[in-house]
Amino acid sequence: MLKVIDGGVTAPKGFKASGIEAEIKKKNKKDIALIYSEVPATAAGTFTTNRVKAAPVLVDIDTVKKGKGQAIIANSGNANACNGKKGITDAKKMQTETAKALKIKSDLVYVASTGVIGQTLPMDRVVKGISKAVKSLHHEGNDDAASAIMTTDTFPKSISVEFELDGKTCRMGAICKGSGMIAPLMAGPHATMLCFITTDANVDQKLLQKMIETSVDRSFNHVTVDNDESTNDTCIIFANGLAGNKTLKSKSSQDYAVFLEALQFVTTTLAKMMARDGEGATKFVEVIVENAKTEKDAFVIAKAIANSPLVKTAIFGADANWGRIICAAGYSGVKINPDVVDITLGGKSKDEEDFELIKLARNGISTNFPESDAKKLLENSDILILVDIKEGSQSSYVWTCDFSYDYVKINGSYRS
Amino acid sequence: MLKVIDGGVTAPKGFKASGIEAEIKKKNKKDIALIYSEVPATAAGTFTTNRVKAAPVLVDIDTVKKGKGQAIIANSGNANACNGKKGITDAKKMQTETAKALKIKSDLVYVASTGVIGQTLPMDRVVKGISKAVKSLHHEGNDDAASAIMTTDTFPKSISVEFELDGKTCRMGAICKGSGMIAPLMAGPHATMLCFITTDANVDQKLLQKMIETSVDRSFNHVTVDNDESTNDTCIIFANGLAGNKTLKSKSSQDYAVFLEALQFVTTTLAKMMARDGEGATKFVEVIVENAKTEKDAFVIAKAIANSPLVKTAIFGADANWGRIICAAGYSGVKINPDVVDITLGGKSKDEEDFELIKLARNGISTNFPESDAKKLLENSDILILVDIKEGSQSSYVWTCDFSYDYVKINGSYRS
Repeated sequence: MLKVIDGGVTAPKGFKASGIEAEIKKKNKKDIALIYSEVPATAAGTFTTNRVKAAPVLVDIDTVKKGKGQAIIANSGNANACNGKKGITDAKKMQTETAKALKIKSDLVYVASTGVIGQTLPMDRVVKGISKAVKSLHHEGNDDAASAIMTTDTFPKSISVEFELDGKTCRMGAICKGSGMIAPLMAGPHATMLCFITTDANVDQKLLQKMIETSVDRSFNHVTVDNDESTNDTCIIFANGLAGNKTLKSKSSQDYAVFLEALQFVTTTLAKMMARDGEGATKFVEVIVENAKTEKDAFVIAKAIANSPLVKTAIFGADANWGRIICAAGYSGVKINPDVVDITLGGKSKDEEDFELIKLARNGISTNFPESDAKKLLENSDILILVDIKEGSQSSYVWTCDFSYDYVKINGSYRS
Repeated sequence: MLKVIDGGVTAPKGFKASGIEAEIKKKNKKDIALIYSEVPATAAGTFTTNRVKAAPVLVDIDTVKKGKGQAIIANSGNANACNGKKGITDAKKMQTETAKALKIKSDLVYVASTGVIGQTLPMDRVVKGISKAVKSLHHEGNDDAASAIMTTDTFPKSISVEFELDGKTCRMGAICKGSGMIAPLMAGPHATMLCFITTDANVDQKLLQKMIETSVDRSFNHVTVDNDESTNDTCIIFANGLAGNKTLKSKSSQDYAVFLEALQFVTTTLAKMMARDGEGATKFVEVIVENAKTEKDAFVIAKAIANSPLVKTAIFGADANWGRIICAAGYSGVKINPDVVDITLGGKSKDEEDFELIKLARNGISTNFPESDAKKLLENSDILILVDIKEGSQSSYVWTCDFSYDYVKINGSYRS
């Protein structure tokens, strides 16, 4: 049984965290986060599939090969991407400086950066910040760390749960950031933002890697804000084993299902928070495509609808312009028969359980729904777009947000 | 020698046009356009590849099989898409009513609609409008027709040229509309907006079809506004032969090159006008990708950059955030080596010939260009983004526009 608890990344045994100001961003903003396990942990991770990979991502891809980790050092305000050799040198320096201050080996330290691309890190301030972050480590440091990785995020994102493996109480916690340059990709292992997960469960490294890939695929890879896949996407999980359960090794064990459920709950919760906090977002939007021939077909259609600027601006304007929804389905690349498509709109407040529903189109034609009722639904904070293409029995989903004036405002002046 | 002349679609011999108010749109807006050739013409066309095709598109795809045409009837304010059997019946009624009023055969009439999806046409007003449009036909009707097909366009789009085939003076003219739901697609014949082209040249139908496909591929299919491919895209060309040249039949003739040049000039000019008039656009943006392994690679990268909301909002905000450009190149799907990429920014006013240039990145790293100079360039109306990926020798281009508050405004309340 999964239970939501307090504490975020510091909820599991043996984990500390901190978040401090190093003046990488403007003054009075936290910009360096540190997560630390008192003992070396089993580590796994997924990274951006963008051909342009930030220096810290390249360093981590190398580090995770050994499958061990004890600390994650992350800065916001600067992506350390497209800085050539200097970028790699700086990322490695972040790694070694953190290791030195913590008195651990360098290859137990992971590095992450997020912010502006193409500007080099102010390394003097970063090094001082690392030292400050190490000194600030404590068991209640989760909220500081969650704040320190934010860029255009409007709220810190964190979650933690408790569950039982092998008769032992285990915990899992995570922090995450991401609100722009967010896009899902289906194939292969990769993440689409910064997400750091801690657990005191004892898990085999190979199985942990598989489970993080599966969970990322089902959660973060179903989020899109602007279809821009970042150069810095990183998702890392540490399992330090301090809960004392027998090492989780087999996919066939009952414990496997329990752990995967916890991991999926954590990643799904954070993924939805990310969509809700999309840059300029005023609404959370869930697109579900039902009855496709394959899950991938359903996903491709859902993604086309979720990425359509015309659909997203219509939702912002509370205009039930379902023609734009079927139009996006039509150009998605998947064979559909428009003459059988049903489109249903749902709306609810953030705290309500169930959506109120209105069918907008049946068999590709308007139901002549009352426009004022649809408009009212669209004035809710949570919107559902349900598309039934009647081609098969598979379904998929994408989480996104609407497209508002504030997206333009935020991104027209991001660096200034 | 190509010469730009006045007259638009009515510049070629034997063509008349009109544009009238039928009250399909709000009052005091023209919304039905008619183009008519005094004699039956050779006809060719390309249409949307969206799986959801509007009723008039389905009717035209059938009509063009015979390769002949004499009239084009088009309405704005309603797309006649997603209206089921009623949509087809209405599109065919537009065709037969026009034929009846013009006393020509129905299968010489093409139909086009643009506007809101999923609402049926007010056929009583459409029928009255057709009769009015036929009565209004005249040799100076181009501007009325160009205005009548506008939706969110801020200016009518029209061009005409004169050239010589077989010693005879020939003319070609065109009108076009399109500012939202505009996206390019590479494979296969199709158009991405409404474009009607007339010529008095005498051209073999099969060759005309090939040439219109080639020209659309090189022009309209390189425009993106919002990556939303419409359900109604239509490009039709009529060649009525009244210039008296010997039928142009062979690709190897000198005349072939002359005619294709004219056609490409016309479609390219209109395609660029469409990008400049993209919904909410404040700037025209040309993205050129150089030295790719294949032209398709270059196109795919250019398209990813041109469609990136982050790039487009940065241009709107005059922020030379080149990291977003290389990031988009990186997730385009094409293999690139970021460490060799050069990015150059250009700016000029609409009437200047040459771009002023600043190199932003060399071999994947910032040139440390003066930000204020780059900002000044970006305050121009015409922006060039030149990306050299140094993988081969092929290049391609995409025309687009920036992404402003007004895009959100226009599309948040399109139907109201």
